[in-house]
Amino acid sequence: MTLKEQLAAYSKMVEDRLMTYIQPSEDKGQAVVFEACRYSAMAGGKRLRPGLVLEFCRVCGGNLEAALPFACALEMIHTYSLIHDDLPCMDNDDFRRGKLTNHKVYGEATAVLAGDGLLNLAFETASDPANTKLVSAETQVKAIRMLSRASGMDGMIGGQILDMQAEETSISLEQLKTLQELKTGALISVAAQLGCLIGGATAEQTQAAATYAACIGLAFQIQDDILDIEGDAETFGKPIGSDEENGKSTYPSLLGLEKCHALVHELSQQAVDALASFADAGILPELAYSLADRNH
Amino acid sequence: MTLKEQLAAYSKMVEDRLMTYIQPSEDKGQAVVFEACRYSAMAGGKRLRPGLVLEFCRVCGGNLEAALPFACALEMIHTYSLIHDDLPCMDNDDFRRGKLTNHKVYGEATAVLAGDGLLNLAFETASDPANTKLVSAETQVKAIRMLSRASGMDGMIGGQILDMQAEETSISLEQLKTLQELKTGALISVAAQLGCLIGGATAEQTQAAATYAACIGLAFQIQDDILDIEGDAETFGKPIGSDEENGKSTYPSLLGLEKCHALVHELSQQAVDALASFADAGILPELAYSLADRNH
Repeated sequence: MTLKEQLAAYSKMVEDRLMTYIQPSEDKGQAVVFEACRYSAMAGGKRLRPGLVLEFCRVCGGNLEAALPFACALEMIHTYSLIHDDLPCMDNDDFRRGKLTNHKVYGEATAVLAGDGLLNLAFETASDPANTKLVSAETQVKAIRMLSRASGMDGMIGGQILDMQAEETSISLEQLKTLQELKTGALISVAAQLGCLIGGATAEQTQAAATYAACIGLAFQIQDDILDIEGDAETFGKPIGSDEENGKSTYPSLLGLEKCHALVHELSQQAVDALASFADAGILPELAYSLADRNH
Repeated sequence: MTLKEQLAAYSKMVEDRLMTYIQPSEDKGQAVVFEACRYSAMAGGKRLRPGLVLEFCRVCGGNLEAALPFACALEMIHTYSLIHDDLPCMDNDDFRRGKLTNHKVYGEATAVLAGDGLLNLAFETASDPANTKLVSAETQVKAIRMLSRASGMDGMIGGQILDMQAEETSISLEQLKTLQELKTGALISVAAQLGCLIGGATAEQTQAAATYAACIGLAFQIQDDILDIEGDAETFGKPIGSDEENGKSTYPSLLGLEKCHALVHELSQQAVDALASFADAGILPELAYSLADRNH
């Protein structure tokens, strides 16, 4: 399968399964909050994080079916973070990926609860007794710990706090790197780590996956910053020039565009080089290059 | 120990432990969100839910130290729900228990993230590898599943959705009961169930605990509605008459005050009667009566 076909196959697996998870046990009048969750969970996107879980599991020789609940849980966490990020008191965005944001459709109160609900549902999903057919309880607990640490206040939420602080002041390159590692890096890293955990990776492979994830996570962010300057608004799906307008410290503002382009390619190569401990790294090398070359 | 002494001892255990859980692994600039969490987690309150976890564990012959992380996780979930409930887009409350609400002190964005952070931290705490010294991985997964189901969209969050819907219309007694079972009952029930799980309760004891929790949960809500009419604002800690002012359907509005008083006492008695399968039910009987008699 080509990269595109494999990612599409993973997306379909994840989306089909998300639809079965995101529904009430019994509708007691609360079904609208599940509908709000499905609206955002099904609003498209690259499905990068669950794709990484599944592909790392596969290249480690693991069972995709065993990894799928954790891939879905991670995508729920990613989706909840987008819903809360878009709220009026946060980024106050009306659109995401060309669709109205959750609170514009369902109202702010329901959007807050839908985000809370998806975060809860991620842990309901990860602790589902149905998983124990394929995954030991020990592994389930480890996966839950990894997920909650990555998305929590020492992970993604911490990064969101740093991001808010950075809006009011200019920050150093080192601070920007910490911000990215927490805000977007933590979930990308945990995707790779979950795949390794469920796939039964060796210690060497797990270390390699950590390097790969750190490199593509950083490259992804730098490329995002580049596209905010050089991109095409329609292809990129976001307005162009917003970072400069908001006076945000970004990789291009701190390093210059030329250096950033070079860095993205260097990081992608480092990511690919890290995969040497996998006999067959599947789509992972091509995925790293494609994230660096993307225009959206 | 008297009821008051035992509850105070449990509160101290829980609060001391919460303080150790609610702190950053490393301060990378995100410490303010932990501070916001501690502000609300340490704002007082009855500590009813963690107290139930600990006392049910104890009367089942379990180890309090084993139950404590789960008691703390539950209190974190309760606290996160209060922070989000108080937000301007939800109940828009400036004060809770006589203190400024979280968003009045830290701003809305940080309050949203502190709530998200506490919910995450509950699952970080419940999946802490340190717990496995006293609790098996199987039990940990079961506890996480119970917690997430109770606080999720088929539990507390679902109840918050019903509560929002009920603000716009009058509802039936049956609808009010469903609302209460989800919004406040689910966390009280899971408290009892977690205590039974960690304490190694028999099936009969677990069933008895479920009945006890359902009865005190409902009695608690009816008493809350009564106090909103008959209470003293200062002792109760909330303004009096707000339900009637807002045209809310409550137990007194649907059943009348006299019937409500009788029902509270009946339910407390039922709760106590359910405890027959425990040789020593500890403070649980007196706790049931005291919740019915409370004026705050």
